[in-house]
Formats: sequence, structure tokens, C-alpha cells
Amino acid sequence: MPLPNAALAELKNLLGDRLSFAEGVRADHAGDESASPPAPPDAVAFPDSTEEVSQVAKICSTHRVPMIPYGIGSAVEGGIVATLGGLCLDLSRMNRICEIHRDDLDAVVEAGVTHVDLNGQLAGSNLFFSVDPGAAATIGGMAATRASGSNAFRYGTMRENVLSLEVVLADGRIIQTARRARKSAAGYDLTRLFVGSEGTLGIITGVTVRLHRVPEALSSAVCPFPDVAAAVNTVIETIQAGIPLARMELLDEVALDAVNRYSDLDYELKPTLFLEFQGTPHGVVEQSQRVGDIAAAHGGLDFQWATDAVERDKLWQARHDAYHAILQLRPGSRSVTTDVCVPVSRLADCILATQEDLKSCSLPCPLLGHVGDGNFHVLFLVDPKQPQEISEAEHFNRRMVERALDMEGTCSGEHGVGLGKRDFLKTEYGPAWELMRAIKTTFDPHNLMNPGKVFRD
Amino acid sequence: MPLPNAALAELKNLLGDRLSFAEGVRADHAGDESASPPAPPDAVAFPDSTEEVSQVAKICSTHRVPMIPYGIGSAVEGGIVATLGGLCLDLSRMNRICEIHRDDLDAVVEAGVTHVDLNGQLAGSNLFFSVDPGAAATIGGMAATRASGSNAFRYGTMRENVLSLEVVLADGRIIQTARRARKSAAGYDLTRLFVGSEGTLGIITGVTVRLHRVPEALSSAVCPFPDVAAAVNTVIETIQAGIPLARMELLDEVALDAVNRYSDLDYELKPTLFLEFQGTPHGVVEQSQRVGDIAAAHGGLDFQWATDAVERDKLWQARHDAYHAILQLRPGSRSVTTDVCVPVSRLADCILATQEDLKSCSLPCPLLGHVGDGNFHVLFLVDPKQPQEISEAEHFNRRMVERALDMEGTCSGEHGVGLGKRDFLKTEYGPAWELMRAIKTTFDPHNLMNPGKVFRD
Repeated sequence: MPLPNAALAELKNLLGDRLSFAEGVRADHAGDESASPPAPPDAVAFPDSTEEVSQVAKICSTHRVPMIPYGIGSAVEGGIVATLGGLCLDLSRMNRICEIHRDDLDAVVEAGVTHVDLNGQLAGSNLFFSVDPGAAATIGGMAATRASGSNAFRYGTMRENVLSLEVVLADGRIIQTARRARKSAAGYDLTRLFVGSEGTLGIITGVTVRLHRVPEALSSAVCPFPDVAAAVNTVIETIQAGIPLARMELLDEVALDAVNRYSDLDYELKPTLFLEFQGTPHGVVEQSQRVGDIAAAHGGLDFQWATDAVERDKLWQARHDAYHAILQLRPGSRSVTTDVCVPVSRLADCILATQEDLKSCSLPCPLLGHVGDGNFHVLFLVDPKQPQEISEAEHFNRRMVERALDMEGTCSGEHGVGLGKRDFLKTEYGPAWELMRAIKTTFDPHNLMNPGKVFRD
Repeated sequence: MPLPNAALAELKNLLGDRLSFAEGVRADHAGDESASPPAPPDAVAFPDSTEEVSQVAKICSTHRVPMIPYGIGSAVEGGIVATLGGLCLDLSRMNRICEIHRDDLDAVVEAGVTHVDLNGQLAGSNLFFSVDPGAAATIGGMAATRASGSNAFRYGTMRENVLSLEVVLADGRIIQTARRARKSAAGYDLTRLFVGSEGTLGIITGVTVRLHRVPEALSSAVCPFPDVAAAVNTVIETIQAGIPLARMELLDEVALDAVNRYSDLDYELKPTLFLEFQGTPHGVVEQSQRVGDIAAAHGGLDFQWATDAVERDKLWQARHDAYHAILQLRPGSRSVTTDVCVPVSRLADCILATQEDLKSCSLPCPLLGHVGDGNFHVLFLVDPKQPQEISEAEHFNRRMVERALDMEGTCSGEHGVGLGKRDFLKTEYGPAWELMRAIKTTFDPHNLMNPGKVFRD
């Protein structure tokens, strides 16, 4: 579906040299981090303002041109692949931090601001923005995919951390989904409807996010376990005990090996929990002692506790870099990344059954996860030029999703649907899926907003 | 719009003596706690199961009969008044607590279970359900109105505490909005769309809620202040300091006088904060000392701290009973209850301007609020037989809402829209309001689901 000439002329007139047809630029916007085959848009727009996005939407709507919002391309389900061509709206120029309200613990940013930018701006204050999906993603993209990451256990996902959104609808209307008050019982929750809608209902151009206070004290711990069940049972008992951990991350032996090599560490190759405690100086001591006791009762092998900032930062940087570390296990590979989430009580069963299943997999497939939330990933390292490897990864992914759905879980804990999870939604939601489709049709009757994502056409 | 004979026959056949036309029963379901003129439904159904609600919806949909879901009638915006007649679905027989998952900290209940029932069932365990709007409301009704209350500052509103909903749609389809996993990035957030939809999109028949661990230690404090600004600034600084209070409630002199009389207490008649601390035994001491210091710096007059359970329960029972205490200030009166919520940084300004405005009000009008959230209420005590008193209350309410909207606030922090707030939604949301209407039309094309609520017809 190439751009009609009339649309082209209007877009050129509006954007000048901020509309690009260069092959390199189009190729840069053709795909994300996933193994989904890339497909370039017909052109890439670099709007400067919400008003401009609105003008672009009006033009595209009039001429029935698909619109694909683009943050930084770090997602992993093919959500920005231009399968039908059309116009990519790269929002990277909309990177202004508009307002920081210290008394209200919130900030208003344009969609192209990354969480790294925002936290850079907040450095030295006593506030921070908590959501960090690993990559240096834009806050608009994170809202669109309902991102979370390792801090979500304590601070919530984007669902809990977005107060309001500015959105451009298919026809160019600009809406603000909510006021800046922390709570409201007035009308339908449009904010949460757009959070996680992956550009299929409108283009998020502005985000009001919650900020949190930097805790007084931080400490971390690492603990290897004889097996995954022991690690997960430690997590369950810690949650049960109401200990307010900030992060609870599990890495299996293969993932830990990758992290050791990439970050020059020497953790013992066992299923291992990375933990973070936050609170008052006294509180973190209290927490870590209690979790140490729980870990020991479950056979934890060596609970290493650290308050030293350098050591702690090294640990979390290593966890943060795990994705790239894992890719290095097989240079030149891409990752088919799975993302199931189940109730925590089912997590050990789900991981153990998955590990059993993976014994017959020929690909490197490390496992790691945000186990406090019941969310874990297996990264299948595939040669993107070998279709049978992608098929093999997809085969095991499908079995993982089916297993998670059988355990009251979801096909995606944090990555979104994109192209990769569309076929699971109907099973996951049953008749509620039809309601989602009806919403899509209401908001986007001509199927122009990131078409083909979330739903098959 | 009386019930058509054909519908009547089918409903009788389905429900037998669980379909009532008795004038007393209809009158009991004609209104809520608000001063909105009651209007009885044509009949009241007492379904036993989701399947039965679905059958009722099919019959009503076929014969175009309005459906009004009813929990316990404790709401305050006229949300269950049968302005167009039709069938009231009283869900009180659907009061089964279906599942409690201790490892996952969640519970699955039928819509007619009250939060009091659920916490009764949990008594003696280390878990509790946190949302308490004051009245012994049903969890289905609380989900429908996005209820909150004094615990919301720490534990969130129904928005944060509902994991999934079972809903019967207008045409009788039964859907489950989400899996029981704690987080998901798969598809549109139907759960949050139904939370706060006030029966206008479907009938909530089942709710999966989050549970929280009972804290190890609890303590409370009461502190009078020379003026409201000093109290609110104490709240802001406490939030800023990241002190994890459980509750922060403000009562003005009139509200405190009512509470003193009703609950046999003798607090000094000054703007007063009621505070609750939760955590470890050491943590609550630490918190209360720090808040005591902040209060003192803002002119707090006498920070009284209590760990004694009897004293603490008496305090919070008194706060809990404030609504009834206030009604006793004028026996026979009803309350027109306002419910604005603004960013906390604007709260002192908003309350002070409101108090200034209320100097010309002839009605008793105590003020109290969940100030940690920026949410406060003025209760205008009116003689329901005196229309000019209701008009006077509505006049001041309108001015309060306009003031809140000017301060980036919302017309309802926790009570919902019902009949009372419909005319403010358009101003609050601008073009986003049209999107809400479009969702309503998509879900309920014949306008049968609690018609006239949230939107004027």
C-alpha cells in the first residue's frame, strides 16, 4: 500500500525534510529487536509536536494511509513492523520533559522521552521514575506496550505508573485521557485502555507519569539454590511474609553463565535469585535478615548480602545487561523471547515443566524472570537466516504459552502482543476478545492505526 | 417504560418467586444514600448465579427492558435510581466467596459479597482486603463505582485491587476480563474499563481481588492544627519524605464536632489529621516520630500517638462512622455529598477557597477527606423535602467542582458519576468524553444498561 500522491504532497508540505523516503531510514524503522521479519514503511515522519501528529493523522486518515508510531524500536514482538507499509511516525523529536511536579510526585513528558532521559533530569532530586524494561525505551512506547521490568514487583507496571495520556486519534482529534489528580471515579478509564493498546487505538504523544521517592537505603543480595523450585518457594514465602522487596529476579544456570561472561562476574552456576531491598537503613537490614532466613530454610546455598553501592550497581547493571549478554552466547543470533506470566503459586510448576520440555530443544535457551510477579522469559537464540530454527523456537514458545494459559496465566507478562502473540489472544480471553475487536473498530474504523498488530486483519 | 408482558412471562418462568413486584421491595430499590429523588424499578430480580443473570439479560435485551444492577444501595450519586423504570437486578444472593488463594494473595468472589464478609472470612489469617468505602458495600458495587476510601493512599483504589472481572454483557454474553496472573501485556485492559463503568457497560457478576498481608504492627496518631493549610502542608511534606503511611484523613471542626458527639470522644475542635502507620514494630515507631516532627514544624498542636489496639480501633471506628455522625447533626436530613480530588499541591488552595465560599452557605456543611490522595468531601445536610435546600447544596457543589477542574482536578474522586455528576464530565474530559460515549454505544447499542447514568440520554 504505497503512499498516494495526494497524501505525499500534503505530508511534504507539512513536514518538509522531516519526511524521509531514504532507504536507510526506512530500513532503520522496519523492525524491532524480535526475530519477526522486518518490513519497511513507505516513509518516515519526524513530527515535532502533538499538533503536527494530529495534522499527519488527518492526512493519513483522509487518504487511508496506515500509521505506525515508533519510539526507539526496542520492543520484542514485532509491534512496529510495517507489514502493510504506510507511514511510520518516529516520535524521537518529541523529547521534551514538560513539567516536573515535585509536590505531587508526577511528571509530564512528551512520548519520545526515554526513561533514562527522565531519570537523568531527576538525578540529584529525591525522586525517580520506576519503570525500566531493560532497554532505553521511550516512555510513550512503554505506555503503548504496558511495559514493566524488574521494579514492577514493588512499584507496578506502566498500568500503575501512568496518570494520564495525551493521544492523537485516527482522525486527528487530540484527547487527554484524565486529569492530573491521583485518583478519579469520573467516567471510563481511557488511560488504562490506551496503556497497552500498542498504537492500535491512537498515537500516544504525551504521558503524565508517577514519580517515586528515592529510598533512603538500598541493599542487594544474591543467593544460589540447588534447584528452581527452592528459589521460587523462597519467593512465595517472602511475598507471603509481606516483606516489601523491590526486586526479585531469577536466572537459571545458562543465563547466569552468559551474565558472568559478559559482565566479568563469577557467580556459581546454579539457579540464582537477585534481590533488592529498599527502605530505611534499619528496614533493609531487617528485610535482608528475614529473607536470608527464608532462603536458608529452602536450601539457599550462600546468601550474599551487599550494601556497598559499587558492588550493588555492578550486580544490577549485570542483570540489566542480561539480554545483550545472552545474545553473546551465540554471536550473530537474534532472540525469540517468550514472556509468560502465571499466578505465583503456579510458577515453580510452570518453570519446571518448561525446563523438562526444553530438554529436547536444540537451541541455546536460557531462562530468567521477574519471579515476584510470576513472569519469566526463555530466550531462544536463533540464526535469523535459518527458518527451521525460528520454527523450533516458535514451537516451544507455543507450548509455553499453552502451559501458562492452562495455569490461569497470560501469553504476555510485559512484552505485548505485536505480531507474535495475536493467535493466543482468542484462547486467553474467549468472548472478551470479541469486545476488544469491537473497541478497535469503534476507535479505528478504517484499520489505519498500526494495522495487523494485536489482531490479525 | 413498564415491563412488556412477554418479558414478564419469561422472567417469571426463569426466576419464580425471585422476581418481585411488591411495592415495598420496589421502593427499597428506588434510590441510594443520595438526595436524588428515588424512582422505583418496575420489578426486582434476585438472580442466584451468573448464568441466571445472563438469561435475564437475554430476556431484557430481546424486549428492550432497562437493567439496573443493585448491590446494597449505599452509593451517593443516584447510580441505581430507576429513572426509566425497568428491571433491578439485586445481586445480594450472589454472595459466595468462591476461592481464596493465599499464596497468590487474591480471592475470587461473587459480586454480592461485601468487603465486610470477605474480611470476616479472612479473619485469623494474615491476609485482608484493603478497600473500604465506609459503608458495608458489595465488592461488585465497589468495582462498578471504582470505590476507594481511607486505605487507598497506601493500597490503592478498586482500580488497583481488581485483578479480573466476570461480566454479563447487554446481550447476555458472559466474559472474563483477564486471567489471574498479577500482570499482563496481552490486549486491551477490559478490567479497568469495567471498573468504574457503573453498570452502564455490563453487569459485574464476579470479582477477583488482590489481598494484602496484615501488617505486623499498627499505630495511629491524631493531631490538631491551627488551620487547614498547616494540616495539608504536613501531609504534603510527609508524602515528599516517602513515609509510607497507611491513612491520612482530615476532618474540619464541624466534622470533628459530629464525630465527638456520635462516638463519645472529646477531640479539640480544630482542623485535625487522623493518621495510621503500618509496618514492622520498629518501622511504625520510626514513621510516627518523623511525622510528629513534620507536624510540629507546621504548627501541629498536640501529636497524640497510640499503639494501644482498643484506642486505635475506637479512633478508626469513629472515622468510619463519620458519615452517620454527620447526619446526626441534623436529624432527618440527607446529605448532598461532594467529592472533588485535585493534585495534592493544590489541595490547601482548593480547601481554603472552598471554606471561604461556604461562609455564605446556610446549611451545615462539614468537610473531611482522604487528603493523602487530594480527595475531600463537603457534606451539605439538607431537608429532602425542601427543594431550595437541595438547590443551594447543588449550587455550592457546582462551584466546588469548577474550582477543582480549574486546578487539574476531577469532579469525583471516589463516588462516581451516577446522576449527580453527568453534566461535569464533558468539561472534565473535553473530546475524550465523546470517546466514552462511543464505547457506551458499542457495548450497549440499545441503551439498556443502567440508562441515564454517567451520560444523559
